[in-house]
Amino acid sequence: MATEITSKDNATVKAAAKLMNSAKERRQQQRFIAEGVRLCMEALENGCEICELLYTEDAYLRYNESISKLEEAAKQCYLITEEIADKIADTVTPQGVFVVCAMKHMSISLEKIKTDGQYILLENLQDPSNIGAIFRTAEALGLDGAFLTTDCCDPFNPKAMRASMGALFRLPYLVVGDAVKTMGDLKARNMRPIASVPDDTVTKIVSVRFFRGAIMCIGNEGKGLTEKLKNVCGERVTIPMNGRAESLNAATAAAILMWEMVRNYA
Amino acid sequence: MATEITSKDNATVKAAAKLMNSAKERRQQQRFIAEGVRLCMEALENGCEICELLYTEDAYLRYNESISKLEEAAKQCYLITEEIADKIADTVTPQGVFVVCAMKHMSISLEKIKTDGQYILLENLQDPSNIGAIFRTAEALGLDGAFLTTDCCDPFNPKAMRASMGALFRLPYLVVGDAVKTMGDLKARNMRPIASVPDDTVTKIVSVRFFRGAIMCIGNEGKGLTEKLKNVCGERVTIPMNGRAESLNAATAAAILMWEMVRNYA
Repeated sequence: MATEITSKDNATVKAAAKLMNSAKERRQQQRFIAEGVRLCMEALENGCEICELLYTEDAYLRYNESISKLEEAAKQCYLITEEIADKIADTVTPQGVFVVCAMKHMSISLEKIKTDGQYILLENLQDPSNIGAIFRTAEALGLDGAFLTTDCCDPFNPKAMRASMGALFRLPYLVVGDAVKTMGDLKARNMRPIASVPDDTVTKIVSVRFFRGAIMCIGNEGKGLTEKLKNVCGERVTIPMNGRAESLNAATAAAILMWEMVRNYA
Repeated sequence: MATEITSKDNATVKAAAKLMNSAKERRQQQRFIAEGVRLCMEALENGCEICELLYTEDAYLRYNESISKLEEAAKQCYLITEEIADKIADTVTPQGVFVVCAMKHMSISLEKIKTDGQYILLENLQDPSNIGAIFRTAEALGLDGAFLTTDCCDPFNPKAMRASMGALFRLPYLVVGDAVKTMGDLKARNMRPIASVPDDTVTKIVSVRFFRGAIMCIGNEGKGLTEKLKNVCGERVTIPMNGRAESLNAATAAAILMWEMVRNYA
């Protein structure tokens, strides 16, 4: 049975809203909050530990089947008002369903990296929609996983989660504190980190023969990869373009780079 | 000199808000409204006819240089209040600058199509962000232009314009009432319309040799291309994938298809 909450000042409500709004809070608590019936179900179906389920009466009636499943899995269930849903929500017209999940077991360890796999590394990516879109594309194209530097936008940011369409719950990923050291270690294990740069003078991506065991490194939206990360990579590649190269969106550039990694295996 | 407007019920304000919110209004008036200093400047620099400029005092102080240039080009200038800017704006925190532009000369005629060019056709695409992103990528990759069916989302939708990053003002495009007839006509002029479909049994895009004079047809986000459009196309191609094919975003799929069209020329 769900516990009813009617006050916006309730501690559970405040904690949920904080998880929605603050990456720091998510990191400290090692929890995240997913919004909307589709994302909540993705979390459930992909084995996330569901600590809390919050829903409005209206949502219960509309998404009865899904909410019943979520209820079975959730440790705690709360019936909330529309006003509370608005307070917690990141969207303008919330569906009124939320789950608070534990982050544990979601990121993988370095030992789990397949040295014959194909990976991306995102360095200091700041736009949550880009992070989410890149996760979605990486999964769709069958990449083995993603590395994120600690200065990237939090992938559990609500916008990132929505853009990933649940790929965040499925694509193996690893947050790395020292990307240069990690890439160095993986090079020693015969992997091949590759720096993608907007630079006409380097190897065109179309002339690269991709083998398995590659890590495509993608830098910040404005500044690109740091010098030290470029230096640890053995090679630099670029997307040759006839048009206005500078105007390719970061997630689109990443999609073309990932596509080139897999196109000969597809 | 700018005319001052202080009432939200002023006719100019109401007309501007209507242009922002209604595709029908834009079509009837053959005008559109661009918001934000960057997009307004893109409109100016790409030769759009600027009928009206509206700005707040705050915007005038902050973007003085740009607004001065816009003032020179605009037929009418209005100084508006923050409250009015909020009423007109599509964004949550508006910059307080808007231009109303004439649509004339923005779309091209069928005669202007280069039969040795490379084009995309979008059929019944509904998400404005997808339309904008596809325009942006098409321009970045150096495609020659885009066809849009009349049932596509209006490219002058504010979200589409923002996602296009001004590409809408630069990429030649043509709205077609009867896409089947148009593709038939272009086939008769030796062009090659190609249907992109999510279907494992058709030709993989990686095995297609692209020549100039091709039109890649991309369908609705959920339903894909209509049968009649698929039938008029000589060939069907698909993006082969190792991962979860169905989860590739429409704009990302379009980016990969367009990239395959140009990669051998890049």
